[in-house]
Amino acid sequence: MPSTQNAPALPRVVIVGCGFGGLEAARTLRGEKLDIVVIEKTNHHLFQPLLYQVATAGLAAPSIAAPSRWLFRKQPNVTTLLGEVDGIDAAARCVHLTNGHAISYDHLIVAAGATHSYFGHDEWAADAPGLKTLADAFEIRRRVLTAFERAELEEDPERRRALLTFVVIGGGPTGVEMAGTLAEIARHTLAGEFRRIVPSTAEVLLVEGSGRVLQAMPERLSERARQQLERLGVKVRLNAMVTRIDAHGLEVREGGAEGDIVRIDSRCVIWAAGVAASPLGRLLGEATGAECDRAGRIRVQADLSLPGHPEISVVGDLAAAMSHVPGQAPRPVPGVSPAAKQMGRTAARNILARRAGRPTQAFRYKDWGSLATIGRNAAVADVPTPFGALRFSGYPAWLFWLFVHVYFLIGFRNRLIVLMDWASAYWTFRRNARVVPEVRAGRG
Amino acid sequence: MPSTQNAPALPRVVIVGCGFGGLEAARTLRGEKLDIVVIEKTNHHLFQPLLYQVATAGLAAPSIAAPSRWLFRKQPNVTTLLGEVDGIDAAARCVHLTNGHAISYDHLIVAAGATHSYFGHDEWAADAPGLKTLADAFEIRRRVLTAFERAELEEDPERRRALLTFVVIGGGPTGVEMAGTLAEIARHTLAGEFRRIVPSTAEVLLVEGSGRVLQAMPERLSERARQQLERLGVKVRLNAMVTRIDAHGLEVREGGAEGDIVRIDSRCVIWAAGVAASPLGRLLGEATGAECDRAGRIRVQADLSLPGHPEISVVGDLAAAMSHVPGQAPRPVPGVSPAAKQMGRTAARNILARRAGRPTQAFRYKDWGSLATIGRNAAVADVPTPFGALRFSGYPAWLFWLFVHVYFLIGFRNRLIVLMDWASAYWTFRRNARVVPEVRAGRG
Repeated sequence: MPSTQNAPALPRVVIVGCGFGGLEAARTLRGEKLDIVVIEKTNHHLFQPLLYQVATAGLAAPSIAAPSRWLFRKQPNVTTLLGEVDGIDAAARCVHLTNGHAISYDHLIVAAGATHSYFGHDEWAADAPGLKTLADAFEIRRRVLTAFERAELEEDPERRRALLTFVVIGGGPTGVEMAGTLAEIARHTLAGEFRRIVPSTAEVLLVEGSGRVLQAMPERLSERARQQLERLGVKVRLNAMVTRIDAHGLEVREGGAEGDIVRIDSRCVIWAAGVAASPLGRLLGEATGAECDRAGRIRVQADLSLPGHPEISVVGDLAAAMSHVPGQAPRPVPGVSPAAKQMGRTAARNILARRAGRPTQAFRYKDWGSLATIGRNAAVADVPTPFGALRFSGYPAWLFWLFVHVYFLIGFRNRLIVLMDWASAYWTFRRNARVVPEVRAGRG
Repeated sequence: MPSTQNAPALPRVVIVGCGFGGLEAARTLRGEKLDIVVIEKTNHHLFQPLLYQVATAGLAAPSIAAPSRWLFRKQPNVTTLLGEVDGIDAAARCVHLTNGHAISYDHLIVAAGATHSYFGHDEWAADAPGLKTLADAFEIRRRVLTAFERAELEEDPERRRALLTFVVIGGGPTGVEMAGTLAEIARHTLAGEFRRIVPSTAEVLLVEGSGRVLQAMPERLSERARQQLERLGVKVRLNAMVTRIDAHGLEVREGGAEGDIVRIDSRCVIWAAGVAASPLGRLLGEATGAECDRAGRIRVQADLSLPGHPEISVVGDLAAAMSHVPGQAPRPVPGVSPAAKQMGRTAARNILARRAGRPTQAFRYKDWGSLATIGRNAAVADVPTPFGALRFSGYPAWLFWLFVHVYFLIGFRNRLIVLMDWASAYWTFRRNARVVPEVRAGRG
């Protein structure tokens, strides 16, 4: 039974989601006379840029995740609730949770993020898991490690070959990181541990539909990234469209619409190709009449609020937002964590402005550049400076990536543990989280 | 289809299980001209004495688990296979795996360990999970953390009370550790993080059927342990027999067979009461005619082999073994990790003796004493010395426990990370692994 809670004495700000956007919005409102309620589906804030390290057994989950309520322990105006929103009543100013509760609001910030998109092929999900949550990361870790284990037992050469073929679909940052790390695991981490198979004979394929990896990067860096991937042992297949995925592998059409369809036998396919907005976008659109774009993101106004609903803002990957720099045409904001944080901050400040009767500010995206890691000593960086873009790759880019990611990790202890794990992994090639509770020998 | 593998050139030793017993047996055979095959159900050796720390969110799983094949990477005579044994053919000298493979052996060491026993009430398992594997630990962690989360949302006082009541069944070492740590979480770790509930009002109950906790310890130390538990905030209910467990709580009969049945409403019940031998014991008994004791353990001969089957030994928690000290009556060996390690070593040495035509040695248990931790600064120790038993409790026993457990943890990095986590937990009361991928708000 939904039960509407008593009206709060203080104006209530409800924040849905505790990713980079939601967390930053709540933190921006620290010390304010507000009753802030953060509603999160899981019990933790996740440092998503390092999630691929959990999936590839380099880091333990607690190293990149902190309990949301622990993050707010010193901010008494925040109440954290574990809940999943399944209804928004914009007229009554109230959100409904799946567990029957209803939470009223004066201001609402929706920061529900994104999920995978299989481009209309949801049936592929079972055979090609994506990487968005810790549960996803554990599932991928289980599949990768189990594939090597089953190969060691397998006597049929063809099935053994399929078990030792790893396919990553999508050449964006996540796909590139996953493929590079899988190649490192096969070539180095597992070296000397098997007696019947040679792990370094495993094939790692990166399948990308377009003509280059890391499309958001300048073309030259895409080419560098491809070279570094090949050097690490990844086979990069460009212009390859996936046409089918099943339990035994996948089919790709290579060389454009007229190309041939090639079958790849693989027991471990990872989906890093498509991102779609949280389903909450659709709910919010229905509740407010706000428009969604093709990816399901909500088109927000310049100040991140919704047309006709100044009390509702959308931030992060769920928002189709524009950056407004005076004297320039508005430009779309990319779906990256610094943008989510900046939007969270702007949305929170605009709530304060509205309550004080001041005008709200248009969102302006400060671009810190793009970084993508590929593997050991391999990365590409594109950093804007007042003197033009600084573009570099290889070891310096990798060091820069390392520094930035450890710096932004939440919590001193996490940083230290991650640094230690990486230092140890770097020198020994050992990966410290090669443990899966569910890795069990199956039947057949 | 089972497929028998080609006969090996070297004599083959198959070791089933990679706990303390199996690991030590394989290590003892390092450098020998043998083909050692270790068959493990999971991909890791687990440092079980610290498993309760994973369950109570103090440690990440990789800190107490190391991939079995990584442990054997420098021992080329060991092949590690992920598999679950579901058949033993003692006549053909062959074990069958659930995934259809069959592995022949010249010598077999069965070190399959123990599992929970619900004393004929297997229906209790769903509502009172036990703690033997990493998957168990994650399930308990999820239940404990979710209970506090749901209490924060709950408006009905009775249901909230039930959510904040934690019951541990069984006053052995695991039950005592769990109860003490749960009390610490409620009183310290979560302090200041909730806005609607006060976590320290949570009740932690330890239910024990007999008249004292830690029955394997001297009576005085049991009483000390009970006092320390009460000081930490645990309510210890002795002489309380569980008569029913369901989704909403449990019923216990207090004060003996004529006592009253009391109902306790709780949403988080943890089973730490009964241990039974691995089901492999029954299979082995059927295959060899060896006798099982009431707990399902195999009665082994003095040298740990089976009657009529000198090529098969059983070690660890699956063995009902006796310790043979010359001039003394044989004494039963307790189910503790030092005993498992010692048995593994003896069984391995006896294989070498048999192959060399030397007589085998009877197993002799070297008792290093008993240790049980209760919580912060609280433990009890009973250490035999040449001058009589050294019995102590409180802070010195806790420090001793800490030292011993960190010392025996496998892998330098694990020791360091565990020490850091503990140091940080000790000073800050923070628990670093409060992350559960599956913690999600349910319906209703």
